Amino acid sequence: MRTAYHEQLASLTDQLGEMCGLAGVAMERATQSLLQADLVLAEQVITDHEQIAAMSARAEEAAFVLLALQAPVAGDLRAIVSSIQIVADVDRMGALALHVAKIARRRHPQHVLPEEVNGYFAEMGRLAVELGNSAQEVLVSRDPQKAARIREEDDAMDDLHRHLFSVLMDREWRHGVVAAVDVTLLSRFYERFADHAVEVARRVIFQVTGRFPDEEVVPAPH
Amino acid sequence: MRTAYHEQLASLTDQLGEMCGLAGVAMERATQSLLQADLVLAEQVITDHEQIAAMSARAEEAAFVLLALQAPVAGDLRAIVSSIQIVADVDRMGALALHVAKIARRRHPQHVLPEEVNGYFAEMGRLAVELGNSAQEVLVSRDPQKAARIREEDDAMDDLHRHLFSVLMDREWRHGVVAAVDVTLLSRFYERFADHAVEVARRVIFQVTGRFPDEEVVPAPH
Repeated sequence: MRTAYHEQLASLTDQLGEMCGLAGVAMERATQSLLQADLVLAEQVITDHEQIAAMSARAEEAAFVLLALQAPVAGDLRAIVSSIQIVADVDRMGALALHVAKIARRRHPQHVLPEEVNGYFAEMGRLAVELGNSAQEVLVSRDPQKAARIREEDDAMDDLHRHLFSVLMDREWRHGVVAAVDVTLLSRFYERFADHAVEVARRVIFQVTGRFPDEEVVPAPH
Repeated sequence: MRTAYHEQLASLTDQLGEMCGLAGVAMERATQSLLQADLVLAEQVITDHEQIAAMSARAEEAAFVLLALQAPVAGDLRAIVSSIQIVADVDRMGALALHVAKIARRRHPQHVLPEEVNGYFAEMGRLAVELGNSAQEVLVSRDPQKAARIREEDDAMDDLHRHLFSVLMDREWRHGVVAAVDVTLLSRFYERFADHAVEVARRVIFQVTGRFPDEEVVPAPH
C-alpha cells in the first residue's frame, strides 16, 4: 500500500529525474550555441538555468520537509538522504551547461571552436543529453542495468575528452593559445557533467543494493 | 546541558573541520610539488588523499547514524543535513588537491609551469591552505564574521585566476599550448577549491542564521 509519504518521496524522485532531463537538454542547447555561435540560444540556456536552480532549491526543501515531518527510518531514510546529495549533483550539471553557454556568449559573434574540433563537441553534446535521460531513467526505474549504461556513456565522454587533449597537445595545433584555453575548459565541463550523471546513478544503485557498483570509473586524463 | 547526541554532532563537526584543514594542507603540498617538480611530495599528496576519502566516508556514515538513531528535529536536523552536504564539498576539495599532484607527477621530471607563472601558483597554494583553515574555523565557531573572511580569500583566488587567464591570452605567451593547457586546468582547480570552501561557509551560516549571506560571489571568468 502506498502511503501519502511514499507518494511524496516518489514525487521528489520525479522532480530529480526531470531536473536531470533538463540539465541534459541545457547542455545540448549550449553545445548548439557553441557550434553555431548562436547568441539567442546561448541566452536561452542562461535564462533557463534559473528554472533548474529553482527546482534544486525546491527539491532540497521537499527532502528536508520529508525528513522533518515523517522521521523516516532505514531504507526510506537512506532514500531521502540520497536525494539531498543527488540535488547537488544535478544542480552542478545545470551549472556546467550554463558555463558552456557563457563561453559561447562571451566569444560571440566569433565561433569559440576551430572547425577541426566541432565533431568532438557535437558528439559530447549528444552524449550529455543521453546522460541526462539515462540518469532520469535510473532515478525513476532504480534499475542497475540502466546504471551500467551511464557508465558506458561516461566512458565514451572520457574517450572524447582524451582525444581532444591529444589534438590540443599535437604540434600541429594551429589555432593558438586562446582557442586551446577555451577547448580545455569546455572539454573539462563535459567530462564533469558526465561524472555527475555517474554519481547520480551510483547513489541510486547504492540505495537499491546497499553497495556501490563494483566497476571502477576509468579516470579521465585530467 | 549537552546530551550525548550533541556531543556526537560536535564530534562530526570537528571531523569536517579537520578534513577542511587537511584539504588545505594537501593543496599547499600539491602546489609545492608543482613548483619544485618534487615527485616524492606529489606521491605523498596522492597517498594521503585516501585518508581524506576515508574520513569523508566515515563522516557521511556518522551523519546518517545520527539521523537514524536520534530522529532529530528543527535546528539539529538542519545541522545534520548540512553536514552531509558539507562532506561532499570537502571531499571535492581533497580531490582537487589530488588532481594538482597528479599533474605534477605526470610531467615529472619536467616542471609543469613556466617560471613566469610560478608566483601566481605559489600565492594560490598559500590561499588554499588559508581557505582550508578558515573553513575549519567557520565550522567550529559558526561565526559569520569568519565566513566573511572566506569570501575575501575567495575573491583573492578569483583575481589570481583572472590574472592568469590574461597572461595566457596575451600574444606574448611564449610557452606553447601544452603549458597553456596545464595552466588552464590547474588554475581552474584552485578556483574550484576556493568555491567549495565558500560553499562550506555558506551552509554553516545558513544553519546559524536561517538564510544565506547576502553578498553575491563575483563570478570567475570561466
